[in-house]
Amino acid sequence: MVSTATSRSASSLAARVARSARTADSSTVTLAGFQKWFDERRAADGSRVERIPFADLRGWGFEPGTGNLVHDSGRFFSVEGMDVTMPGRPVEAWSQPVLHQPEIGILGIIAKEFDGVLHFLMQAKMEPGNCNGLQLSPTVQATRSNYARVHRGAAVSYVEYFQQASRYRVIADVRQSEQGCWFYGKRNRNIVVEVDDDVEVLDGFHWLTLGQLHRLLVVDDLVNMDSRSVLACLPHPFGADGTDDAAPLPAELLSWITEARTRHDPRVERVPLNEVRHWHRSADRISHESGRFFSVIAVDVRAEGREVRGWSQPMVEPHGTGLSAFLTRRVDGILQALVHARVEPGYTDVLELAPTVQCTPENYTGLPAAARPALLDHVLAAPPERILFDSVLSEEGGRFHHARNRYVVLAADPARPEEPPGPDHRWIPLPELAALIRHSHYLNIESRTLLTCLQSLTTR
Amino acid sequence: MVSTATSRSASSLAARVARSARTADSSTVTLAGFQKWFDERRAADGSRVERIPFADLRGWGFEPGTGNLVHDSGRFFSVEGMDVTMPGRPVEAWSQPVLHQPEIGILGIIAKEFDGVLHFLMQAKMEPGNCNGLQLSPTVQATRSNYARVHRGAAVSYVEYFQQASRYRVIADVRQSEQGCWFYGKRNRNIVVEVDDDVEVLDGFHWLTLGQLHRLLVVDDLVNMDSRSVLACLPHPFGADGTDDAAPLPAELLSWITEARTRHDPRVERVPLNEVRHWHRSADRISHESGRFFSVIAVDVRAEGREVRGWSQPMVEPHGTGLSAFLTRRVDGILQALVHARVEPGYTDVLELAPTVQCTPENYTGLPAAARPALLDHVLAAPPERILFDSVLSEEGGRFHHARNRYVVLAADPARPEEPPGPDHRWIPLPELAALIRHSHYLNIESRTLLTCLQSLTTR
Repeated sequence: MVSTATSRSASSLAARVARSARTADSSTVTLAGFQKWFDERRAADGSRVERIPFADLRGWGFEPGTGNLVHDSGRFFSVEGMDVTMPGRPVEAWSQPVLHQPEIGILGIIAKEFDGVLHFLMQAKMEPGNCNGLQLSPTVQATRSNYARVHRGAAVSYVEYFQQASRYRVIADVRQSEQGCWFYGKRNRNIVVEVDDDVEVLDGFHWLTLGQLHRLLVVDDLVNMDSRSVLACLPHPFGADGTDDAAPLPAELLSWITEARTRHDPRVERVPLNEVRHWHRSADRISHESGRFFSVIAVDVRAEGREVRGWSQPMVEPHGTGLSAFLTRRVDGILQALVHARVEPGYTDVLELAPTVQCTPENYTGLPAAARPALLDHVLAAPPERILFDSVLSEEGGRFHHARNRYVVLAADPARPEEPPGPDHRWIPLPELAALIRHSHYLNIESRTLLTCLQSLTTR
Repeated sequence: MVSTATSRSASSLAARVARSARTADSSTVTLAGFQKWFDERRAADGSRVERIPFADLRGWGFEPGTGNLVHDSGRFFSVEGMDVTMPGRPVEAWSQPVLHQPEIGILGIIAKEFDGVLHFLMQAKMEPGNCNGLQLSPTVQATRSNYARVHRGAAVSYVEYFQQASRYRVIADVRQSEQGCWFYGKRNRNIVVEVDDDVEVLDGFHWLTLGQLHRLLVVDDLVNMDSRSVLACLPHPFGADGTDDAAPLPAELLSWITEARTRHDPRVERVPLNEVRHWHRSADRISHESGRFFSVIAVDVRAEGREVRGWSQPMVEPHGTGLSAFLTRRVDGILQALVHARVEPGYTDVLELAPTVQCTPENYTGLPAAARPALLDHVLAAPPERILFDSVLSEEGGRFHHARNRYVVLAADPARPEEPPGPDHRWIPLPELAALIRHSHYLNIESRTLLTCLQSLTTR
């Protein structure tokens, strides 16, 4: 149970994370060395992903009666339907396909100090939905079905570090939600453990400092969604003095969240896929009759370096590139983000804290201005000098096909600090967001990505 | 938005709560005066509750097809079925009736200082399931259907204080779960607001200090479940120095909860009531064929002082008196409780922190010792000198008919401090429980009652 690291105090942990964030080239690994290694791996990757008709899926089929798209084992995930009522919305009721995956997977990163600097063990991993083959993943990124080897493939490397986490120093360990418009109640365990003993670096894995990861964040489609989500959960010094990693949570903030969760009253029911209205199934896709939102498709995969060399599976293919943006300002030296209490039907607990603006802009072309999300046009029109971060990053390639979002951090105009556009927006200091992220159900996946982007800005 | 009280700091709030807890007879109200008032109200209460056959329910009926017991309006609540799989349990799969009430109600207490001491406005309220007519309720105890007046009755008194809580000083505001074996996903908003202006005391309401409420806790069946739950959410000085109301949450504690929530993998599906196996419906009850657990019954109510003078409704009637017990010890001056990470099928998030022992002992008569809950016999055999608190208190009388639990706080044997009986038990310092209770999904309703009992012990 006891490692030498467990005696280190929490405040020194935040300081050690900050030190890693300030380290761009460590004695162990240089950014140039990593980039060369990654480019070579990507060039050598012989994986192939091909879109196929549903009829060609192996091990998957439409269940008689419900029409749900399910795996023969009953495991992994399924494509089902969801019936949604949200009083007060422009569209108050709809139904849609949704991914149902009740299992809690592991998104785990091993951390280890080299020469007094924390390094994180990352993986160059192919996922079938990646637009560019390999992206940078956590040490372990595995569903329970995967690490329980339902597919009868190879064991998941390093998974024992997280299954027996109490043997190590646990730096972060919290189940976090994923896209509530595409998943029903999905959660993964985001976990970082610090190890003192030697860790064998297997083929396809690479140590990086947090400073290096932060620099790689600005590269489009490189640091994958799961990595961003886990890194957001690290204790991080957001305070003016660089040491504040456990801000007290004001009662007013918690009350604002409670009030919003009480006022919004969404009703969500899982329904059979064949009862979803206005969506139509062809030989190779299930799509909304408007052409908007997303499609469910099927792919065939030939992979290298995975537990299984080849498989086929359904995927969600979003239509259009999304936009997630945080408007930020600094008050008394502390950075604040304008946060949106956002209801998504797949969330376990009504709503989560989301970016200031989160949408797919092209879904709103042709609609009246009043139907556009608050502050969308403000973000789209921001002058370059107020844009602090701007990259296109991919969402999880294991379920989503070429799902990409533009992530933007904007400085508020100092001459006109923005008032929240309504009761569901609120300025929240980053140390308080960092305190909330230690618990489930607070920060959604898009705001976790932006929190990691903000971390990269504050320590560079 | 601003009241004079909002400038008071959080630490002074805990100190003011502590001062109220130390005040047994205030200048405003004496305990003897309250008891006389309450006894007179109870004696004068002409309410009447009568068990009736389901066929005599007005406004309720069994829905064709599902057999669910529903209100004609589709509001209030319904009796449905729940299909449960919990791998690793002595009984791994079962189905049962369950109350489904997706609305979030308000359990709210108004607080106000008189002569520098916080007082809480409590209500002598009749609920049909109370074994003794009136019990002591929060200022407001109302479902959304009630305060939205679906029943076309009178308005709920004082509800505006909580619907517009941001006008006042919010002392606590968090949605908390209720019984996960009887409710599916039930949550109520537990809220305390402090008001500076005059508050009219309506007929049936009474100010009390926290010290007076603590003394009344030892009276069987007086302080009702909702009051106990809300009082547990008050910031409270549990630390050795009497001021610590916002303990930091160690990463190890959060990781222990995350690990347990990942390891347990219950599958719960709502199903039609007529698909529930081994339960049978007669003219006036739905019961398990073993005679154990609970029945669903129907009652007819004639009430005084309620929004509606008469109604009928279904209720859950548990079989046998329950037992909830916290084993406690003191380490370095800080009180700790031995907490159980307990899975109940109706919880929104897998499991919550429960008493050391929580069960209905008579459900285990005739079963082998191995099937008995851990530490049950230890609690039942505890010598009187180690029993710090021991009262029989009622569960919510709006849904449960004569539901009573014996609540016990035990001091661990100093000569033999108890080791946790397994990985789902853990000693947790009370300041950390007080930090967790600010968030949803952590402390179950039974442990919240015991936390209030513990508060009453530490400040008397």
